[in-house]
Amino acid sequence: MVKQERAVRTRRAVLEAAAHVIGTRGYQAATMAEIIQRAGVTKGAVYFHFTSKDALARAVITEQTDPFLPQVSESRLQDAIDFTHQVALALRSDPLLQAGTRIAVETTFSENPLVPYQAWTDIITTMFTEARDNGELLPGVAPDRAAEFFVAAYMGVQLFSRAATNRADLPERVTALWKHTLPGLASPGALSHLDPHGRCVKVPV
Amino acid sequence: MVKQERAVRTRRAVLEAAAHVIGTRGYQAATMAEIIQRAGVTKGAVYFHFTSKDALARAVITEQTDPFLPQVSESRLQDAIDFTHQVALALRSDPLLQAGTRIAVETTFSENPLVPYQAWTDIITTMFTEARDNGELLPGVAPDRAAEFFVAAYMGVQLFSRAATNRADLPERVTALWKHTLPGLASPGALSHLDPHGRCVKVPV
Repeated sequence: MVKQERAVRTRRAVLEAAAHVIGTRGYQAATMAEIIQRAGVTKGAVYFHFTSKDALARAVITEQTDPFLPQVSESRLQDAIDFTHQVALALRSDPLLQAGTRIAVETTFSENPLVPYQAWTDIITTMFTEARDNGELLPGVAPDRAAEFFVAAYMGVQLFSRAATNRADLPERVTALWKHTLPGLASPGALSHLDPHGRCVKVPV
Repeated sequence: MVKQERAVRTRRAVLEAAAHVIGTRGYQAATMAEIIQRAGVTKGAVYFHFTSKDALARAVITEQTDPFLPQVSESRLQDAIDFTHQVALALRSDPLLQAGTRIAVETTFSENPLVPYQAWTDIITTMFTEARDNGELLPGVAPDRAAEFFVAAYMGVQLFSRAATNRADLPERVTALWKHTLPGLASPGALSHLDPHGRCVKVPV
């Protein structure tokens, strides 16, 4: 194995270990020592990639959107619906995604919140902007503000679902979120064609 | 001071001390010892009212809605809008309310989430039900399901605002929440009369 390849694998192992430890213990209680032990690599190797727990948490948050490639179809609004259902399914099993949510929530009240909203908001903004260019949005809807609202509402919905049913009912709640927000978002012509349940959802790799 | 009156004051002092300590340190890090010290009462007096930190946290959550008496006007949907703006203003300064949010968020990932959503959902459900009876809701909107969605979305919006601006922009975000959700909630006749910014907001006592 060449040196660079090994570095990539080490980095990935550390991220996955961090996701596991933070997902189990919470962000505050998680320690670098336990993450290092679980990753099965040397302390030096970990600190080569991440200088602190904070840096590690930022990487978890920044990279949690990577496995999600939104499909591109004739309806960007339907693509957005499908995308959020895809994320909902993954949230039930992906440790990196679960850890990202937990870090976000647990640092909200700290001096420096580690906020994962930006990456998600960027993805949704892009889809809403293209939807607007396709004539799928109501006049007066600003794609960036709408995306920011949507991501915040989605965060609340998935916290609610986590507390209520350990995310078992998350897909239904995401459907309800779209049912409640599409009438203020989609043009009448688009609205009649959209399915808030999402089309065939691809399970992320 | 009669005995019962003293008990009520002690209980209130303990709740306020708990709100302060939890609001400052977080739920996990807060200790009964620090809460007792801050309340300035005896350990026995505290344990007479609350047998554990968990019991205390449940009381903070259960009682956080008490100061809010939604007004009753000819439009129950406008009352709901005004109510959520009233809560938004209070969230910027009321330690009990801030502690309630923090407890909810920090215990979401535990075995036994302490969920404050129910009390808020009940209040909004009542208002949405009366709005429906007044013909203010779109046909097909179920007041209880809509209230549950709304409370979850509100939670996300206020977390987002807490992380982004320490709640400085919360009123604007609550307005945006209503702008995005009213078209899927209100009948066309009601919609034209509603002000998502809220009418005159009474500051809670």
